[in-house]
Parts: sequence; structure tokens; C-alpha cells
Amino acid sequence: MGAFPFRIDATDGKARTGVLETPRGDIRTPAFMPVGTAGTVKALTVDQVAATGADILLGNTYHLMLRPTAERVHRLGGLHRFMRWEKPILTDSGGFQVMSLSKIAKVTEECVTFQSHIDGSRHVLSPERSMEIQADLLGSDIVMQLDELVALPASEDRTAEAMRRSARWGQRSKNAFGERNDQALFGIQQGGLSEGLRRESAERLMEIGFDGYALGGLAVGEGHAAMVEVLDFAPAMLPEDRPRYLMGVGKPIDIVEAVLRGVDMFDCVLPTRSGRHGQAWTWDGSVNLKNARFADDDTPLDPASDVPASRDYSKAYLHHLVKSSEILGQVLLSWHNLAFFQALMAELRAAISEGRAQAFRDEIARRQARSGSETAA
Amino acid sequence: MGAFPFRIDATDGKARTGVLETPRGDIRTPAFMPVGTAGTVKALTVDQVAATGADILLGNTYHLMLRPTAERVHRLGGLHRFMRWEKPILTDSGGFQVMSLSKIAKVTEECVTFQSHIDGSRHVLSPERSMEIQADLLGSDIVMQLDELVALPASEDRTAEAMRRSARWGQRSKNAFGERNDQALFGIQQGGLSEGLRRESAERLMEIGFDGYALGGLAVGEGHAAMVEVLDFAPAMLPEDRPRYLMGVGKPIDIVEAVLRGVDMFDCVLPTRSGRHGQAWTWDGSVNLKNARFADDDTPLDPASDVPASRDYSKAYLHHLVKSSEILGQVLLSWHNLAFFQALMAELRAAISEGRAQAFRDEIARRQARSGSETAA
Repeated sequence: MGAFPFRIDATDGKARTGVLETPRGDIRTPAFMPVGTAGTVKALTVDQVAATGADILLGNTYHLMLRPTAERVHRLGGLHRFMRWEKPILTDSGGFQVMSLSKIAKVTEECVTFQSHIDGSRHVLSPERSMEIQADLLGSDIVMQLDELVALPASEDRTAEAMRRSARWGQRSKNAFGERNDQALFGIQQGGLSEGLRRESAERLMEIGFDGYALGGLAVGEGHAAMVEVLDFAPAMLPEDRPRYLMGVGKPIDIVEAVLRGVDMFDCVLPTRSGRHGQAWTWDGSVNLKNARFADDDTPLDPASDVPASRDYSKAYLHHLVKSSEILGQVLLSWHNLAFFQALMAELRAAISEGRAQAFRDEIARRQARSGSETAA
Repeated sequence: MGAFPFRIDATDGKARTGVLETPRGDIRTPAFMPVGTAGTVKALTVDQVAATGADILLGNTYHLMLRPTAERVHRLGGLHRFMRWEKPILTDSGGFQVMSLSKIAKVTEECVTFQSHIDGSRHVLSPERSMEIQADLLGSDIVMQLDELVALPASEDRTAEAMRRSARWGQRSKNAFGERNDQALFGIQQGGLSEGLRRESAERLMEIGFDGYALGGLAVGEGHAAMVEVLDFAPAMLPEDRPRYLMGVGKPIDIVEAVLRGVDMFDCVLPTRSGRHGQAWTWDGSVNLKNARFADDDTPLDPASDVPASRDYSKAYLHHLVKSSEILGQVLLSWHNLAFFQALMAELRAAISEGRAQAFRDEIARRQARSGSETAA
């Protein structure tokens, strides 16, 4: 089953570590995917991203279909060639950004009609169009089904309705995607915070059959505790032998809690977005480099890192760049944060291999709680 | 004479090519110095700058003395260590930016009192203080004397007065700088567009004796033709065996014309500033990547370059980044432009060595005229 072999090398409780093998290279799991929204991981060259150890990037269908357009990316040789990233790319379906960024004109059983947030132009996204954009035009390695998201708070009825439509769209996505050996299609579990709806969603998806399964509709404002509660039951509903992907997550502690509950893949804009705002993630939580206490701090963010942004520049220098609104400050902190997230995943994989996942989780929880989300002085 | 050996390897007419040897490395002349205003070449890592072939950077005393302050840079190990650039650094005296960026409170024979453009705080710059900041606190390799600049248009009397004060400040700079083996001090010729005043300035400076000589008060709005007229006589007034530095210049054709008239060193914000605004410099002039004609152009800016920004990314991709206001567009175009300016200097040095400097000048003049300064479509 599944276009790409998924090998689980070790488990520790519900946590697993292994490798998802793709024609463009192995993805070590648990994996964190940097977000390359509009054909670029913001502020970084692909070589800088690769130096952090990332095995796979995420691209946003919504942004790319609007600009430069999926057809143009296709004419230019596909997304890998366009942005010079030769390793795997996962693209989302576009559904989430249509909800969060555009003005929706109409959602029907057939499709979503919406207006571009860039120029107000009218566009249509259907399961079939999303497959065409992702699989044929962008040339994504891992393609996500189109799903319907509900705005929160939502009633159980509305949540159930969207979950069932998502399942029907999952079937249409699968039909349009067809059988492929060099590209994979992931389904998306919905059902909000409801165990019953999550189970029904999982069963519908497994009946269709996907190469991997995502957990959708989380990290959308329900809060850490509610998310972890869902993670207590939802991942285990999905096939054990296929990768499980928690979309849009998250902070280091969120990732660790999810991995302990059987999740294998993650993506989030957090490291790059917070880097552009002067914030650095470390083993001891996040710190804001604008803070005056760094003005004379001659130590780097992480002397043990292989990544220049983490190892070679002093906090005093980074403080100066952030205070001076220098682009290089955004570059170096985005780079450092991605390196930190990859280091976190590497440590997680090692902890699972060595049977100390729970102890690692406890250490991260303790150390990350030290600072929380520090703001500027 | 001079702290640093200056070896001229070949001449062609008035043009020369050679090497200025410093303890931190050789500077191949004619040399272009990227500007690292506030401790960073804007948008680029020092590794990216080094990859373009730059032998030396310029740092701005004015910016650094205000933020993070020269004293802080000193506590952090000096400017080289602070910004991680191990090759030579030339710092300006601060005088030009005091004139152009700050609100001047008072200029006396003793010093300039001015207000910071950042927070309005009051500061003093004198020849002695400029030497302390550049040579002792920042640890610059090539230190510039403090000079007085006049706002244009200026009368002959005002120009003469400022030139003579600059000469007196040159003597005070020299006295404060003292004798050093590992750092060099450059004097600055003033005198506006007047041949007589330029000669008097050169004589006063040579009487003091400097390790190198800059041409100041040019590229300040007098226009290309007027500047070239001054370059017809001014560089030859300065010692043949010491480097001559034309401050704040310039476009490729300005640089080439100056080299043909005996100038050895240049600095300018043009490549990085225009890169941040979507403009790329090429052998055939400057182009604006925002222009729609690049939307489907799959070719790189310079396939023959060793620099990734020039060689590996398509114009279509750069167009997309610029249109999308992505930071990576600013990064790649700044990087490409610096690489182009270094390639221009390398070609200039080769042309002089091979006795075809005039033919090279004619080709640059013809090709650079093709586009001029292209604006966005």
C-alpha cells in the first residue's frame, strides 16, 4: 500500500521513527517541513534551508495558483526547478488559505469560488482542479486532497457536514489523482474535537485508501490542551503503516506532544515568521533578540550547531541587526529557527530510537516553559 | 612610504592594476568595496559577500558610532569580529553622513556637533574622535581623515575655505593616528570642480603624508560630465605610488572612466540599493526585474558566474520574487549586483594588464548605454 515505502525503524510507546522513501530522496520521520509559501521559504535561499537538514518543503497551492500561476510554474519546469529545490515537496490543497486569506464567493458541493487577496480576481478550486494544480502543474511529490474547513466555533452538525463533504472531496481527489508511482496522495481527517466524527472521518478515508493521512482542523484556535486531547485518540484511528501528518503545527512542545501520540510529519510558518520578527527559538524557549539584555552578549545562539546563523554570529550582533531593522537580522533568525526545529526533530528521532521519548518530552516541556513567548523589551 | 605596500603590476595609459597588501589580505586594484553601512552589507551574509570576490568592505563610522556605538563594537572585539568579516575593512570618517543624514548643530574649527537621525541625541565628531573611533574602537584597516564637506552649489571662496579646513583636519587626523604598521590612514583631496583648489589640496595633503589619497567632494550631484572633467586632472596630482580612492562612485561607466584616469579604489551603495529595489546590473546595463517581459524568462542573469544568485536562479523566478515583495528577491539581486561589480573590476584589471583598457572602456560605454536605468513596467 502507498506510492512511497514507509519504513518504521523504531517505536517508543505510540511514537515512531522511520523513513518515508520518495524518488526525490528520503524523508526522516518525525519530520518538520519548512513552509515555502510562494515558491520561497521566506528570506532564505534553498541552500540555506538545505543546510538546516530539511528533507522536504511545503508549498502553498493557493499562493502559487494566484502568482505566478500554476500554469507558469509548469511552463518553467515545475515547482522544484522554479525554486531550485531538488528534494521532495508537499503541497497543500489550497483549501485552508482560501478560507483564511481570500474572500469566499461561494462553496458548493462542486467547488469553491473565491476572490484573490492580491487583486480581487475570481478563481475556482475543486478537488479535480486542486489535483491538476498540485500533481500535474506544480509537480508536487506529496499531494493533499481538497477538504472543506469550517470557521470556528462550529456546531457538531456543521462540523459533521464539512467532514462528510471532505470525505466526498477526498474520493474525487483520489479519482482525479489516479494511480501514480512517483507521487503520493494524502487524505485529511476532519471532525473537529469530536471523537465520533474523527472516527467516522478516518473510516471514510481508509475506505478510499491514501498514501498517507493528515490530521486537519487542528491548530486553528482550539488551544494546546484541546488539541492534545484530540491527539490522544485521533492519530491511532489512522493506519499504522502509513505516515500521519499534523497540519500547521507548531511550537516545539506541540510537536513533541504530537509525536508521542503517533504523528510523523509537521509543517508550520512559526520558525520563519518569528525569525522575521526578531524572535529566536532555543532549547530554553523563545527569546526576543530586541531585548536589551542581548546588547553585549558575545555568545552565539547555539555553538554546537553546524549552521552559521546559529553558531557564528553573536547575540549582540543579532540584537544590533534587529534593532536596526536590517534584512540580515530576518535572514539569520529565520535560518537559525529552521535549524533549531530540524535539530529538535533529530533529537526526537534519536530519543525514540533509544526508548527515552517520554523523558525527552518532559525535558522539553520543562525547558520550553522557562521563557514562553518572550516579547520585546 | 605608506603602512601597506602598494605594488603596481601593470599600467595602460593612466590606468593601473596592482595589489595593496594589508595584514588582513591583499586588495586587488582597481577594487570595488561593497558598503556595509551599519555592520552589514544590507541583506547579505558575509559569506555571500566573500563569494563575490570582494577583497575589502567599507563600514560607516557615522552609523556605527550611533548604533551599536563604537565603544560597544570595541567591547565585542572590534568591527571585523562583530560582523564576521576577516578581510580588510575601510571606514569613512563619518563626516559625509553627518552632512547628509543628521541635523548639524554647529561646525567649528574644532569639531562638528550634530544630532543623531535615529533618536535626536547630540554627538561630537572631531578629527581626533574620528581617529579614535575608526582606528582604536572599530579597528579599521584603512582609516579616512575627517574632512569638511560643503553643500552644493558652493562659491569658490566657500569651497576653498572647506578645502583648507579639511587639510588642517587632515594634519590633526595624522597627528592623532600617529605611526602604525598594521593600519593605514588616507587623506582626502577637496576643492570641488576647481583645478587650482584641487592642486592646492593635493599639495597640502602630500606635505602631511598619507598612506593613500581619496578624491572627495565628487559624485555629489555635479553630474557625470563634470566629474569626468575633474578626473582628467585631479588623480594625477596625487602620488603615483600610493592608492587613489574615488569615494561614493558609482555606476559601471563612472568606475571605468575613473580607472582610465588613474583611480584605484571605489565604494558605492548602488549595487545593494538597486538590488533591494528589483534592479539588476548586467553587461548590457541595468534592468528592472519587475518588468513583465521577464515573467517567462527561464535564463539566469549570468550563466558564466560562479555566484548562485547570478547563475542558478531564472529571471522568471526573480521576477516572481520581486513582484511578490519577497525578501529573497532583495537578497538575490543584491548578491547578483555585487557579483557583477566584482566581475567588472576583474575584467578591468585584466584589460589593463593586457593593454586594452581603452577598448574595454568603449565596449562598456556602448553596452551600458543600451538600457540606461530601466524602470518598472
